[in-house]
Amino acid sequence: MAQGQSFSMSDFVASGDNSRNLAPWRSPLARALHRNRSRPYSRYFQLATVQSNGRPANRTVVFRGFWAEGNGLLFVTDQRSQKVNDLSHCSWAEACWYFTQTREQFRLAGAVTLICHNQPDPALQQARQQSWESLSEPGRQSFYWPVPGQPRHSGEDFYPAPGSPAPTPPPTFCLGWLMPDTVDHLELRGDPQNRTRYEVIEGQWQAIAVNP
Amino acid sequence: MAQGQSFSMSDFVASGDNSRNLAPWRSPLARALHRNRSRPYSRYFQLATVQSNGRPANRTVVFRGFWAEGNGLLFVTDQRSQKVNDLSHCSWAEACWYFTQTREQFRLAGAVTLICHNQPDPALQQARQQSWESLSEPGRQSFYWPVPGQPRHSGEDFYPAPGSPAPTPPPTFCLGWLMPDTVDHLELRGDPQNRTRYEVIEGQWQAIAVNP
Repeated sequence: MAQGQSFSMSDFVASGDNSRNLAPWRSPLARALHRNRSRPYSRYFQLATVQSNGRPANRTVVFRGFWAEGNGLLFVTDQRSQKVNDLSHCSWAEACWYFTQTREQFRLAGAVTLICHNQPDPALQQARQQSWESLSEPGRQSFYWPVPGQPRHSGEDFYPAPGSPAPTPPPTFCLGWLMPDTVDHLELRGDPQNRTRYEVIEGQWQAIAVNP
Repeated sequence: MAQGQSFSMSDFVASGDNSRNLAPWRSPLARALHRNRSRPYSRYFQLATVQSNGRPANRTVVFRGFWAEGNGLLFVTDQRSQKVNDLSHCSWAEACWYFTQTREQFRLAGAVTLICHNQPDPALQQARQQSWESLSEPGRQSFYWPVPGQPRHSGEDFYPAPGSPAPTPPPTFCLGWLMPDTVDHLELRGDPQNRTRYEVIEGQWQAIAVNP
């Protein structure tokens, strides 16, 4: 996919991103999420992007579920954040998701579609609206805060905005949708460790055991 | 720094990377390491790089201490791994280090120097040797295994090599040295969250409070 190219819903339905066609890595990932569920941070992963200057960037984001129970991973972000700028220059990303209890790592690489306030696709806007509604109150408040990463002036800037949060998301609220085309699963338990690579080849997911 | 440029020891001593000139982010990072020490995975961080095809990559590595008690972070890697290939094309990296107990994140961005078997600098080779000696036996064994990421053929490939591990590291053993020039520290506890950015400006570290 070219940088900055965006998808429509029909692209994904056509390419099999629906609940009737789950990728083979979904099962071990679901198992990891279940087995590590007692630790809230098991829903955090690290998202790597490439900045416009060519340097990599990396930060923790919260997993917000799968797109329509398909294979795309959702996260929310502030449109004013660095990662939105990165992804508008280069849509490729790699999530690194380490589960501390079961000692296993998933690396999920693919393109990210940003679903922001100016997204014309109604289905994508609906997904954005649903993600907004599922956020906690403090989570929603942060989208009314001053620009992330700018010098901080006063604690008062962080008071709740009057009347907020609105029933519809503010323009700062974006939904990110990572659509993996390669997944690397490493289990540290075992002697030797087990590692499986999943790739889309000619439109189909293939799994192969690789050396750890 | 240009891509692929490497350092000599004297560069770092001159730029203040010694124990008498610790960067201001070292203190909160040391505190985080201490407060999270009961969880062994607190010494893992995620390292983002840029691949030769321009896509980002991201994986978990183990923190192996600071270079000579200075500001550079050490990790070990197999020379045949993807990250060595990435870093030979683009030496920039960003570590994302999330501490689960204290709920704080450090992002450490900078250039990585790879210290491999053909590194001519004696001081760097000595650091590589010391890192080898401090590895656990299973950790050392993995450097005699088949090429990481290649299709796996047989469990027998992973038996210990006869006579290994050698007192000197095998050619596959590399030491990575990440020298941060920007550090972003986010504390999720607090209302609002606290975030501090550290940057090297005109050769000196500066700290600034920024919006979370």
